[in-house]
Amino acid sequence: MLPEGVLINGLTGEVSPGTGKYTKRLSELREIFQDQTELDRLVEVEGDPVVYEVIEYRKEGSDLFFGTTTMEPGKVSGEFFMTRGHFHQRRDMGEVYYTQSGHGVLLLESRKGETKVVRMDPGVCAFIPPDWAHRSINVGSEKLVFVWVCNVDAGHDYGDILKHGMRKIVVDRDGKDTIMNNPHYSL
Amino acid sequence: MLPEGVLINGLTGEVSPGTGKYTKRLSELREIFQDQTELDRLVEVEGDPVVYEVIEYRKEGSDLFFGTTTMEPGKVSGEFFMTRGHFHQRRDMGEVYYTQSGHGVLLLESRKGETKVVRMDPGVCAFIPPDWAHRSINVGSEKLVFVWVCNVDAGHDYGDILKHGMRKIVVDRDGKDTIMNNPHYSL
Repeated sequence: MLPEGVLINGLTGEVSPGTGKYTKRLSELREIFQDQTELDRLVEVEGDPVVYEVIEYRKEGSDLFFGTTTMEPGKVSGEFFMTRGHFHQRRDMGEVYYTQSGHGVLLLESRKGETKVVRMDPGVCAFIPPDWAHRSINVGSEKLVFVWVCNVDAGHDYGDILKHGMRKIVVDRDGKDTIMNNPHYSL
Repeated sequence: MLPEGVLINGLTGEVSPGTGKYTKRLSELREIFQDQTELDRLVEVEGDPVVYEVIEYRKEGSDLFFGTTTMEPGKVSGEFFMTRGHFHQRRDMGEVYYTQSGHGVLLLESRKGETKVVRMDPGVCAFIPPDWAHRSINVGSEKLVFVWVCNVDAGHDYGDILKHGMRKIVVDRDGKDTIMNNPHYSL
């Protein structure tokens, strides 16, 4: 395991060299949006667009790893494109999200059900404490690119959020991103 | 412990809100430079200039913390301004250095004595593996600003580097930053 300089492009999210990547398309995120009929229509009409891409740099034996998440702009019936949202499996491990370009909303929810919003604008380094679920939402008209750093052992727990949803949603109301209660939230 | 958006200025190193900071002046770094007579003269003539400043954002109970290091440009008899250099106390914990502005050299040395250099240019995210000593050197003519992220338990071990020096030094040779063997290195 050797030191290395990894070039990050804050406009495209490119990571050179990266060690892995995955892409999430709209059809894979069906459960998290309010209007699934409209989602199905968009998948059909727009050829299942990419919602976000994650590129990571991870080395065996290191405690930390990092990478980028690049979110496309878009909406489903006014609800902005978002990530799945997750808790970490390790409840003692948080994360850092450092926005490089674009404009987003980081939606957070503690295990106790407190909710919090952090604006993701260029230069904002979001502190995500341990055991707060987090979801990124692109509320702008360009790509939202952020660098994340995390412990390799943190792990992802998507189950709770997929099952219950998050308590808040972020929608376009008269051209303004607006935080609302999630009408489909279920405990 | 709540989530928070922390604004980082990549040109000045400002962190808003920060939770702590310290400054290192030239007189405090006397042992690490080759020409201590010239260093004493600079301290006298230039009023003990600041070499670097560290601002951190740290919350009790989090596993990660982050901050900026802002290094002034400068030289002592051709040897560029640098940080003290340190191993982590926790040998299983590395670090990430993400350069925001300026131009530097990250000098690394493993416990076994391997040396490695990573160029610090804007957009380069340096991966520092566990148990590699690291020292930042400003080889440019402007401030070198980088964001670092680390485990709160990593700790600093300055002793080895202060006692032995690092195996390499970085000096200005005909206007070019050049890596040389450290003539004062002692095991």
